[in-house]
Amino acid sequence: MEVHVFLIQLVLILFTARILGEIASFFHIPAVIGEIAAGILIGPSLLGLVEINTPIHLLAQIGIILLLFEVGIETDVARLSSAGIHSLVVAIGGVVFPFILGFFLSYSIFHFSLLASLFIGSTLTATSIGITLRVLRDLKKQNTHESQIIIGAAVIDDIIGIVLLALLYEFSISGSVNFWNAAKVLLFIILFFLIAPIAAKLVTLTIKKWDEKSNIPGLLPTTIVSLILLFAWIAQFLGAPELLGGFAAGLALSRQFFFPFAAFLHHSHQFSQKVEDQMKPIIHLFTPIFFVAIGLSLNLKVLNMSSGWLWGFSGLLLLVAIIGKLGSGFLLWKQEKATRWIVGSAMIPRGEVGLIFASVGLSSGVLSNDIYAALIIVIALTTLLAPFSLKWLYGRFAKNSL
Amino acid sequence: MEVHVFLIQLVLILFTARILGEIASFFHIPAVIGEIAAGILIGPSLLGLVEINTPIHLLAQIGIILLLFEVGIETDVARLSSAGIHSLVVAIGGVVFPFILGFFLSYSIFHFSLLASLFIGSTLTATSIGITLRVLRDLKKQNTHESQIIIGAAVIDDIIGIVLLALLYEFSISGSVNFWNAAKVLLFIILFFLIAPIAAKLVTLTIKKWDEKSNIPGLLPTTIVSLILLFAWIAQFLGAPELLGGFAAGLALSRQFFFPFAAFLHHSHQFSQKVEDQMKPIIHLFTPIFFVAIGLSLNLKVLNMSSGWLWGFSGLLLLVAIIGKLGSGFLLWKQEKATRWIVGSAMIPRGEVGLIFASVGLSSGVLSNDIYAALIIVIALTTLLAPFSLKWLYGRFAKNSL
Repeated sequence: MEVHVFLIQLVLILFTARILGEIASFFHIPAVIGEIAAGILIGPSLLGLVEINTPIHLLAQIGIILLLFEVGIETDVARLSSAGIHSLVVAIGGVVFPFILGFFLSYSIFHFSLLASLFIGSTLTATSIGITLRVLRDLKKQNTHESQIIIGAAVIDDIIGIVLLALLYEFSISGSVNFWNAAKVLLFIILFFLIAPIAAKLVTLTIKKWDEKSNIPGLLPTTIVSLILLFAWIAQFLGAPELLGGFAAGLALSRQFFFPFAAFLHHSHQFSQKVEDQMKPIIHLFTPIFFVAIGLSLNLKVLNMSSGWLWGFSGLLLLVAIIGKLGSGFLLWKQEKATRWIVGSAMIPRGEVGLIFASVGLSSGVLSNDIYAALIIVIALTTLLAPFSLKWLYGRFAKNSL
Repeated sequence: MEVHVFLIQLVLILFTARILGEIASFFHIPAVIGEIAAGILIGPSLLGLVEINTPIHLLAQIGIILLLFEVGIETDVARLSSAGIHSLVVAIGGVVFPFILGFFLSYSIFHFSLLASLFIGSTLTATSIGITLRVLRDLKKQNTHESQIIIGAAVIDDIIGIVLLALLYEFSISGSVNFWNAAKVLLFIILFFLIAPIAAKLVTLTIKKWDEKSNIPGLLPTTIVSLILLFAWIAQFLGAPELLGGFAAGLALSRQFFFPFAAFLHHSHQFSQKVEDQMKPIIHLFTPIFFVAIGLSLNLKVLNMSSGWLWGFSGLLLLVAIIGKLGSGFLLWKQEKATRWIVGSAMIPRGEVGLIFASVGLSSGVLSNDIYAALIIVIALTTLLAPFSLKWLYGRFAKNSL
C-alpha cells in the first residue's frame, strides 16, 4: 500500500467523520451517529471512496481499545456505592429484561441459532455510558437524584456488558455454548480484574516516578499507550477480547479507583489529570476511525433494504429494546413516577457499547449481515431516541419539581 | 496481519525506543540515537523480534510528517531577521562547504554515481535544529549572542535542506540530474511555500472559529491531523516529498508566521498554544516510530562491518562533515574567536534532518546499503559529538566572558 493512498484515506475518514459528527450534533443527534454515517457515505454503501483494509482496520482496533480505556478511566466506583442499591436494581433489570426479551424474540420466534440469539440478547443489554452522561450534561441535570442512579446503573451495566462480551467471545471461538469455557472465562475475568488494575497501577506509579525525572518530552503518551496496548495484547493472549485490556488499564488510572488492599497504590489526582490531558487528543484522534470503520464495513448495497423481514425484525427488536430498559426504571416502585420514567429512558441508548457487541458478532461470523443491519438500526434508533425523550420527559414533569 | 501481532510490535517499538532513549539521555547522548538503537536492537540486526511491515512503515511515515510539522511550527522568521546577516552567512557556508567537500570526496575520490554523490553531499549540509536547540537549552545558553546566530542559521539551513531534498527527490525519480526538472521543482517549492502556508492559515482560521462553536470534543486533533496529512498528500501529488506538506502546514501554524500581504491572517497566540498542547502528545507518540523504523530498516547483518572500506569512507566523511561546518563558523571573521568556534561546533549535528536525507536516498534506491551505513555512522557521530564539544568550548572560553 502506497503512503499517499493511505494518507488521503485517513484524511477522508477523519474529516468526513468530523463534518457529519458536527452536523448530527447541530441537530441534537449524538455525534457517534454522524461518524457511522460518514463511513456509510465514503464506504462501499454509497461513494465507494474508501474500503476497509488492513492498516485502517488496525487503527480502528487501536481506536476501540483506547475508547474502552477512556470508559475505564471514567468508571467511578465511589459514585456507584453512593447511588447504592437503586443503581444496582436498575442495572440488573436493564440487563435481564432486554436480554430475555431479545433472546426470546430471536430464538423462539425468529429461530436463529443459539449463539446468534445470545449475541442479539446481549447487544440489547448494553447502555451507552458516554451518550447517557452527555445527554444529562447537555440538559444540565447531571447532579440530580435520578442522575446519580442513572450514572451508577450505567457503570454497573458497563462492567456486566464487558463480562458478557468476553463470555460471548469465548462461545463464538469454541463454536458452542460450553459451561466449562464460560466458567473459565468468568474466572479469568475475575482474576484479570483483580490483578490487572493493580499491575497497571504499579506500572503507572513507575511511570509517574519516571515522569518526574525524565528529560525527554513525550514520556506519558508513549508509555501509557504502550501500557494500554500491552494489556490489550495480554487480554487477547489469555482468550479475552483486546478491548478488555484497554478497560482494565483505564480502571487502574481512574481517579476514583479504590481497592481495599491496594490503598497504598493510590496516586495523586494531579498525575491522573496530566495523563488525561495528554491522552485525550490521542483518544479523540483514534476513536472516530473505529466508528467510521463500522460504517465502512456495513455494505448497505448487499442488503435487501426493501425486505419486509429486515424492517419487521428491526421494528420488533426496537420495541423489545425500549420496553426492556423502561422496565428497569419501573423496578424503582418506591420512587416518584417522574424518576422511574427518566431513569428508564436514560438507559435506552445502546451507542458504542452496543456497536462493540454487534461488530464482534459480525467479525466472528456469528451474526449474518441482515441481523447485523437490524442491530445497527436498533442501536442507531435507541441512541437517537434518548436525547429527545429525556428532554420531553424533563419538560413534562417540570411542574412536579423533581 | 492479526491485531494482537500488530499491538505487541507497537508496544515493543514504543517501549524499547523510550528505554534506550532514556538511557542515552542519562549519558548525555541525544535521545534520537537511543531510538535508532532500539530499532537495531529489536530489528533484524540483533534480536529479530520486529521486521518492518506495511502498517509500521505507514505509521513511521505519519511520524516523520508530524515531526516536520513540528519543525515548521518552531521555525521562527522573526528571530531569523533579528539575528540578521550573520545567520545567513553561517547557514550558506554550512551548506556550501560540506556539500562541496562531501561531493568531491564521493565523486572524484570514491567514484560514486553523480546522483549518489549529490545525496551524500546534501546529507552533510543538514543541521539538526532540534538537537542544536536542545543542547543550548541544556547548557542554559539559549539567549546569548552566538545562540541567536546559531538558531537563525539552523532555521535557514532547515529551509535550504528541505529545498535540496525536494530537488534530490525529483532527481532520483527521473533518474538523472535534469535542469528543467530542477527548475520546475524549485518553482513549485516557491509557489508551494507562498500558497500553502496562506491556504493552511485560512483553513486554520476556519478551524479556530469552528473550535469556538463545536460541542463535540476532539476537534483540534482530528482537524489539524487531517490538515497536515492533506498537505502531505498534496505535496506528494505535485511531485514533492510528503514531509514538505507537513512542514508547510507547520509554518502556517507557527506563532511567528509573518507574511507581508497576509497580516490579516495573523491568529492569536492563545489558539497556537492550544494547538501545540493538543498536538504534542500525538507528535510524541508517532515520531519515535519513525526513528525506530530507521533502525529496523538498517540490517547490520548484511553489512561487512569488518570492511576497511566502510570505516575508511566513514572516517573521511566524518572529517569532511566536521571541517565543513566548523568552516562556516570561521566566516564570521569579525566576531570573537570563541563565537566562531561555538557557532561552527553547534552546526555539526546532522540528527533527524540528515537521517531524512539518508533514508530518502536509501528508499529511492540511489544509495547502497554500504553508503547508507556510512552516512548513519557519520550522522550518529556528529550528533554525539556536538553536546560534548559545546560543553567543552563553553568551559574553555568561560574566562573570556562571552
